[in-house]
Amino acid sequence: MRIAIVGCGVVGSSWALVFARAGHDLAIYDHSEAAAIAAVDFVENSDPALAAHCRVASSLADALSGADYVQESAPERLPVKQALYREIDGLLDAATIVASSTSGLPASSFTEGLTIGPRCLVAHPINPPHLIPLVELVPAPWTSPETLTFTRDLMTDLGQSPITLTREINGFVVNRLQSALLGEAFRLVEDGICTPEEVDAAVADGLGLRWCFMGPFATIDLNAANGIAEYCANLGPMYHGLAKEQADPRPWGPDLVAAIEDRMRGHVLATDLPQRRTWRDRFLAAIVSAKRDITKDVGA
Amino acid sequence: MRIAIVGCGVVGSSWALVFARAGHDLAIYDHSEAAAIAAVDFVENSDPALAAHCRVASSLADALSGADYVQESAPERLPVKQALYREIDGLLDAATIVASSTSGLPASSFTEGLTIGPRCLVAHPINPPHLIPLVELVPAPWTSPETLTFTRDLMTDLGQSPITLTREINGFVVNRLQSALLGEAFRLVEDGICTPEEVDAAVADGLGLRWCFMGPFATIDLNAANGIAEYCANLGPMYHGLAKEQADPRPWGPDLVAAIEDRMRGHVLATDLPQRRTWRDRFLAAIVSAKRDITKDVGA
Repeated sequence: MRIAIVGCGVVGSSWALVFARAGHDLAIYDHSEAAAIAAVDFVENSDPALAAHCRVASSLADALSGADYVQESAPERLPVKQALYREIDGLLDAATIVASSTSGLPASSFTEGLTIGPRCLVAHPINPPHLIPLVELVPAPWTSPETLTFTRDLMTDLGQSPITLTREINGFVVNRLQSALLGEAFRLVEDGICTPEEVDAAVADGLGLRWCFMGPFATIDLNAANGIAEYCANLGPMYHGLAKEQADPRPWGPDLVAAIEDRMRGHVLATDLPQRRTWRDRFLAAIVSAKRDITKDVGA
Repeated sequence: MRIAIVGCGVVGSSWALVFARAGHDLAIYDHSEAAAIAAVDFVENSDPALAAHCRVASSLADALSGADYVQESAPERLPVKQALYREIDGLLDAATIVASSTSGLPASSFTEGLTIGPRCLVAHPINPPHLIPLVELVPAPWTSPETLTFTRDLMTDLGQSPITLTREINGFVVNRLQSALLGEAFRLVEDGICTPEEVDAAVADGLGLRWCFMGPFATIDLNAANGIAEYCANLGPMYHGLAKEQADPRPWGPDLVAAIEDRMRGHVLATDLPQRRTWRDRFLAAIVSAKRDITKDVGA
């Protein structure tokens, strides 16, 4: 398939690798040609044989010409997206699908009234998509069912794990789940119950060890002899009580953030953050690979 | 060290294995002698050499005699705990520490007024502790600092990962974090945004892959160029907006639970839940082992 990569920051470059390793041919475009070249370098550094699948497009029109699918990862600013989609609308072939990597802007906010509107949607990855399979597909009200089906099938063929939201909602699914956990994490630290490092340990040495291969429903389904309904009957009232205590939506105030920042910088200096990201990506790649092997061994 | 295991259900048996493999000598007691024998069998099935460290105690007094530390995992019913701790209070040596595995009952609710009160606390594992290292230590108002220090050091020596709460709070830390995530998970399904399976995929194929080795704070610290303070400045208002949308504490109603139960039983029959738990424990053991190897390779 012919894929256009539009926007070559961290997310766009990672997407380029996802499509190239699946054997697709890529036209790679960024407002900055240096960024587009860097994306090709990123793919080539991962696997030199993949460079043959990539070409740097000389213009947006050049990138879109003949494309079957566009993965757009432009900056997360609404006026930028709106101008870009108007431009794409004037250039695109009749059948091309356009997916935005946006984590926060609904497709309806930048595709309203466009001819291509029914062929546009959000395909939001968790960064970086070449390591993390989950992609959430979010339709605008005018996104066609065929567009959703096409993109879901494409993502599955790529080896990603797509979920399809029925409609637009703030934060989509991933950031709503993260929001809920972060809200309680900040609350526990603000209330002096434990340190940020202890919240992190509760997840990384505890809850997260289950959540990396079972979601929250599958987890509680196994935590009562007769499954999730029994679990909810036994513990639903307790969780409802906790939910009431967690219901105050607090801003993350400057003193609280500064205190947490101080603790984090005690472990990783600001100047060491880039190499810490390299560590994270190495760990992620190894965990994903281990999970694949374990799944082969004990089943999914 | 001489350890008394009091209560031999799933949690107590797993604790027995944790202590035995660290080389401690165990006196194992349950109201049902068959349960105590089953716990020794569980340890022996894991490693036959460890059986020599275990003896079945003939009575609670026999189990406590000479014990340095008691791990109590009796049923989660307040009157049961209260009666048991009154009995222990009359039997115990002057220096012995008593930790309860309770997931929901604060130590103050069953140790008030007892001589042993200052030497009692909650040491709540995530099940099963022989696979998941996190243990949350929760003091009653009268728990002595020495009791906390002793237990934290013991847990660290065992290879567990202890966190120490400053005070009692409903749900402790682990279930409060789980509550926040579950609340949003049920909300997304109730509002028809996506299926339970898709929520599970969002975690197991997405967020959970980071959370199994980085907590929520460490995760967002790496998601802005200059660290967590920049992340909060950029995205704090967005998360505060989501928190307001997530603030309604909803009960898990019977229709919602029945609908989710139906979906779950479409994947795992009720009669297959026991073997699914075996699968979970095999997956957990393999993930924890892989994480240990990866940490050796790329660092913590």
